[in-house]
Amino acid sequence: MTTPAHPIRVAVIAATGYGGIELLRWLTAHPAVEIVAVSSESSAGQPLTAVYPHLAGLEMALLPAAEARFHGEPQVVFFATPNGTAMQLAPAVLARGGKVIDLSADFRLKDPAVYAAYYGRAHGATDWLARAVYGLPELDREALRGAALVANPGCYPTAALLALAPLLRAGLIAPRGIIIDSKSGVSGAGRTALQTPYLYAEANEDVSAYTVGAHRHQPEIEQQLTAAGGEEAVITFTPHLIPMTRGIFTTAYGPLTRACATDEVLAIYRDAYAGSPFVTVLDATTLPHTKWCAGSNRAFVTARVDARAGRVVALAAIDNLGKGMSGQAVQNMNLLCGLDEATGLERPAVYP
Amino acid sequence: MTTPAHPIRVAVIAATGYGGIELLRWLTAHPAVEIVAVSSESSAGQPLTAVYPHLAGLEMALLPAAEARFHGEPQVVFFATPNGTAMQLAPAVLARGGKVIDLSADFRLKDPAVYAAYYGRAHGATDWLARAVYGLPELDREALRGAALVANPGCYPTAALLALAPLLRAGLIAPRGIIIDSKSGVSGAGRTALQTPYLYAEANEDVSAYTVGAHRHQPEIEQQLTAAGGEEAVITFTPHLIPMTRGIFTTAYGPLTRACATDEVLAIYRDAYAGSPFVTVLDATTLPHTKWCAGSNRAFVTARVDARAGRVVALAAIDNLGKGMSGQAVQNMNLLCGLDEATGLERPAVYP
Amino acid sequence: MTTPAHPIRVAVIAATGYGGIELLRWLTAHPAVEIVAVSSESSAGQPLTAVYPHLAGLEMALLPAAEARFHGEPQVVFFATPNGTAMQLAPAVLARGGKVIDLSADFRLKDPAVYAAYYGRAHGATDWLARAVYGLPELDREALRGAALVANPGCYPTAALLALAPLLRAGLIAPRGIIIDSKSGVSGAGRTALQTPYLYAEANEDVSAYTVGAHRHQPEIEQQLTAAGGEEAVITFTPHLIPMTRGIFTTAYGPLTRACATDEVLAIYRDAYAGSPFVTVLDATTLPHTKWCAGSNRAFVTARVDARAGRVVALAAIDNLGKGMSGQAVQNMNLLCGLDEATGLERPAVYP
Amino acid sequence: MTTPAHPIRVAVIAATGYGGIELLRWLTAHPAVEIVAVSSESSAGQPLTAVYPHLAGLEMALLPAAEARFHGEPQVVFFATPNGTAMQLAPAVLARGGKVIDLSADFRLKDPAVYAAYYGRAHGATDWLARAVYGLPELDREALRGAALVANPGCYPTAALLALAPLLRAGLIAPRGIIIDSKSGVSGAGRTALQTPYLYAEANEDVSAYTVGAHRHQPEIEQQLTAAGGEEAVITFTPHLIPMTRGIFTTAYGPLTRACATDEVLAIYRDAYAGSPFVTVLDATTLPHTKWCAGSNRAFVTARVDARAGRVVALAAIDNLGKGMSGQAVQNMNLLCGLDEATGLERPAVYP
Repeated sequence: MTTPAHPIRVAVIAATGYGGIELLRWLTAHPAVEIVAVSSESSAGQPLTAVYPHLAGLEMALLPAAEARFHGEPQVVFFATPNGTAMQLAPAVLARGGKVIDLSADFRLKDPAVYAAYYGRAHGATDWLARAVYGLPELDREALRGAALVANPGCYPTAALLALAPLLRAGLIAPRGIIIDSKSGVSGAGRTALQTPYLYAEANEDVSAYTVGAHRHQPEIEQQLTAAGGEEAVITFTPHLIPMTRGIFTTAYGPLTRACATDEVLAIYRDAYAGSPFVTVLDATTLPHTKWCAGSNRAFVTARVDARAGRVVALAAIDNLGKGMSGQAVQNMNLLCGLDEATGLERPAVYP
Repeated sequence: MTTPAHPIRVAVIAATGYGGIELLRWLTAHPAVEIVAVSSESSAGQPLTAVYPHLAGLEMALLPAAEARFHGEPQVVFFATPNGTAMQLAPAVLARGGKVIDLSADFRLKDPAVYAAYYGRAHGATDWLARAVYGLPELDREALRGAALVANPGCYPTAALLALAPLLRAGLIAPRGIIIDSKSGVSGAGRTALQTPYLYAEANEDVSAYTVGAHRHQPEIEQQLTAAGGEEAVITFTPHLIPMTRGIFTTAYGPLTRACATDEVLAIYRDAYAGSPFVTVLDATTLPHTKWCAGSNRAFVTARVDARAGRVVALAAIDNLGKGMSGQAVQNMNLLCGLDEATGLERPAVYP
Repeated sequence: MTTPAHPIRVAVIAATGYGGIELLRWLTAHPAVEIVAVSSESSAGQPLTAVYPHLAGLEMALLPAAEARFHGEPQVVFFATPNGTAMQLAPAVLARGGKVIDLSADFRLKDPAVYAAYYGRAHGATDWLARAVYGLPELDREALRGAALVANPGCYPTAALLALAPLLRAGLIAPRGIIIDSKSGVSGAGRTALQTPYLYAEANEDVSAYTVGAHRHQPEIEQQLTAAGGEEAVITFTPHLIPMTRGIFTTAYGPLTRACATDEVLAIYRDAYAGSPFVTVLDATTLPHTKWCAGSNRAFVTARVDARAGRVVALAAIDNLGKGMSGQAVQNMNLLCGLDEATGLERPAVYP
Repeated sequence: MTTPAHPIRVAVIAATGYGGIELLRWLTAHPAVEIVAVSSESSAGQPLTAVYPHLAGLEMALLPAAEARFHGEPQVVFFATPNGTAMQLAPAVLARGGKVIDLSADFRLKDPAVYAAYYGRAHGATDWLARAVYGLPELDREALRGAALVANPGCYPTAALLALAPLLRAGLIAPRGIIIDSKSGVSGAGRTALQTPYLYAEANEDVSAYTVGAHRHQPEIEQQLTAAGGEEAVITFTPHLIPMTRGIFTTAYGPLTRACATDEVLAIYRDAYAGSPFVTVLDATTLPHTKWCAGSNRAFVTARVDARAGRVVALAAIDNLGKGMSGQAVQNMNLLCGLDEATGLERPAVYP
């Protein structure tokens, strides 16, 4: 494998969270990237492999975030930080001409008031918020080419939007009356969530809904569905925690605006994702599985029409840490840097 | 523990399936029951403990079903058989005055044409079908007292009906536009389902929907919701397989017929389940968990109103083999035999 | 189910840990017991069902331990407390004539110096330590009848001793050269162990050994094997954490003192456990499974002779929270109180 | 990523088993490989993606094995076939000058009588058996360079040999008295093993030993340990099935031939694996985890001396489908074809 004469220098801020190490997994295998800095506040000063022996071979010292963002003059800085950090640390990177891909929620919600309401703090970088591009390439990859700041989508929004946006754009479903029922693996809670519900003995053999009607991804999904359909979307969104590590499965229910058959819905998907290397539209005989996505950047999408009820059931499966987070961030980096969108990302799932 | 002078003699047909051994688990600890016969076609002639060493202490020989149903003159015969068997073997039991609790689908659907359409065979005992009582005690326990033949509900219907029937009865939700999104553990497929999707390496770390729009429990749910609401119910039902052994979690979405608050919905539940020892209505701060039901006959129910969308989100958790199957069957036996409904069933979940 | 005219009044100290709620599960179904007090330091003042909704029906207020141990004049006080607590709180109970069953390690190691070395504190009740009886009924149930203070065995020791003690007693294996390789579910870490390795996303799909050569159960096993064989036992003990909630599987390797066949070993087991209702000796064609024990007080034991290597492979499976902890504690209570050893404990595993 | 002007043409026989799709995962990302043929007997004629939608992008038709081994003139043919197939189909490939890497057991055991005893059939290609090279590069990579036929090691032997061979070579442990206690994920049973014990509901929350004293990998391990130590090795080997999909964790116990400290053992490992890119020797403070290997070709090895017992505890973790099977097969291909051993294999584990 040859590397380009001048690989892209990247830094990963908060490299020891699940988003961070997943980024490292993709970036170390990327043919056009050089990782120049990795950060961790809690383990600053230690070698990365002291925290994660499985990264044997990636011998780098962990720096504090404030230092890592400039160390080695990175051209792209990934923020896999808790909410509230990127808005503080990213502007200086951007001011120096660096590109920023933020995996947190800091730049996703266009309305600072909505951000404040859902995230409990005033937004600290509203100027950059206005310039941030929402990074779901399948819905608007042109906006990403040459962008400076990308708001990498949330995991739930990624699956929901891939399933619903094309149908709203096509006018096939109404923007009000949409229900999104999502099932997520536990890794979505992150590695620092030392709380009882995330203990193995509690989460294993258990399913539950959580934050019913109040999840932070709800306004994000509505914002993007509104953009897709051109009319205000109002959704009911129910996230569930299920006993597995990776994966999100979304079952979305949309009211049809007119009678149509399953094949017509699938044709809309195929048309929408014709140029998208990471979305597989399944036919009327096959339903998605999260296992098909594990460790990959792929999404599987399909739908079935319930003619009796006048409704479409749209289904999507992703790896919440792959297409739902770090794989998508690398996909966005490729677009920002003028590379082929799929560079370094063409790996099938680890199955079984 | 004293046993009554004359315990109820029971037989378990198909005792070596998951429904069967779960029945045995409940019945061996029941203070008023004597198990007089157990059957298995594939293991007839063997001792039960040769198939299930964990039942050490329950030393009985497995008989063929046709023989076991009469062996020891059982007063109650449980059929934990594949669909199509009880309709053949139960009438003779009933004719002799025995009571039958059928855990299969044979006597659940009142319309033989619907049965034929969904189960692929003509119904072979339509006279008894007309006399069968649908055995969800929380919705109509009076009909069960003294009944001869009980159609024990399906696992999905049990959870869905507990969440939705009181709201339909109260006229709070409309019978059309209901969506039922259910998540089930893998034991629902049974022990004889030697198929690739049920292998550990395939089902682990995987979620998927299946039989979207075509599951056999859909007409059963609609039949009972129609009965509850007095108007034809049309539902969209999506079952999912998730990586756990036991448990069903149902998230149901119903269109409100008028504005109301969450507390009002909860009050309806509390009223409906005031005399039901196995349904716990959770308040507005607590959401159900399937782990709370594991190995028990308990159901947890709650709801949240989504005022923006004019919809109620109703949630229920059960053990698919407990309240969703064999625990409920024993509850029905208690009612049939004039015992206190909770006899032998008051055990908390095995947690964690 | 009739309760005796005068049920045994019991208190459960630390009722909200995994050992505690497992005790409650057994005790609520015990025909001769009345639970008069339950304690929790962290949730004192709250109702028990606020912490554990699955215990619906068991409406009791949580008291501080120091109060609960006397509240309602319990005749038996179970300490499911962290190590170091029972030695402080139990003596006053004992002084008043109450019986104590300690599920912690406080009274297991007869030598206070070994306790201090392994548990990092001086023993605070050495007088009671001398009078405590090690509570593995299958090895010495006579010592338990009428005892005042029981040291309930550790989970690993329970499985290891059931597999090995009869063979040492029979002189079939040598006390030096024994290797014990154990595999435990994650619930053994308890509910308050909010540490990264016990998070679902970390423990799932992972196996590892831990505290190799340094586990606290090693001196406990050696003490009891020494007692069984009459000669100092020296073992190599390796505990492993495996991705399941409940269960311990122990594979022990013992050097044969003379040539013998598998059947002879099994005969020794059968003889040793002839009067023990909770130990099932499996024959030469069947190997134990932890699933056969889940939620029950049963142990499965068997062995195979490796003639080429001059070694016996002894295998045991238990539920770490059942026979390995709370089930065994109730079994000990039965013996202490003159009840049949099996009272309230005769339930098969929850399978699957 | 540039591909060489003349990539190596490879065929995968039995591409739809777990070994086969894992090979495809590695080979599609290998920079010097072109997959020219894939086979499946049961799905011959179908596209590969009809069987495995997650391989979207790898559009190839499945051929019968007899045809696929020559289709497209492969230079290397991988046999991921059931035992007994490669010995029939491989000789013709070898006769034409193709190289063969056999992932089955057909060419592992040098003594045809031992093969017959353990695999229940006479060996059908004893001439090639004599010429086959056992493919564990870390123990003898020179023998692999330029070899024509490689017997890819079994999963258990890989972990056991990595942990034990260097210690035997160094004369630190005696070749008799070794105990190997291994814990494997369920994927080792393969995808076509439609048997009750491999069902999710049976394997989940269960641990058991199996084929105690009779596993087919025992003579393979003994053969290679004998080769390593120069003296006949006699082992006791106990495989266990644990509830996870991927991974093998091996805990081996070896009698020390002389007193030594843990650090000395680790130094022997470090020396043995100095030139081995895929073996990480962990220091005295860190124990291996299978999760660190998931989806990778890496092995983690360490040891602890139990001075009291005069024994070393050697521990190894691998992915049974990675270093234990298909990753190792690709590593062998690299050596056979004169590539750098690590080509296409340098990916960290998918964590968590």
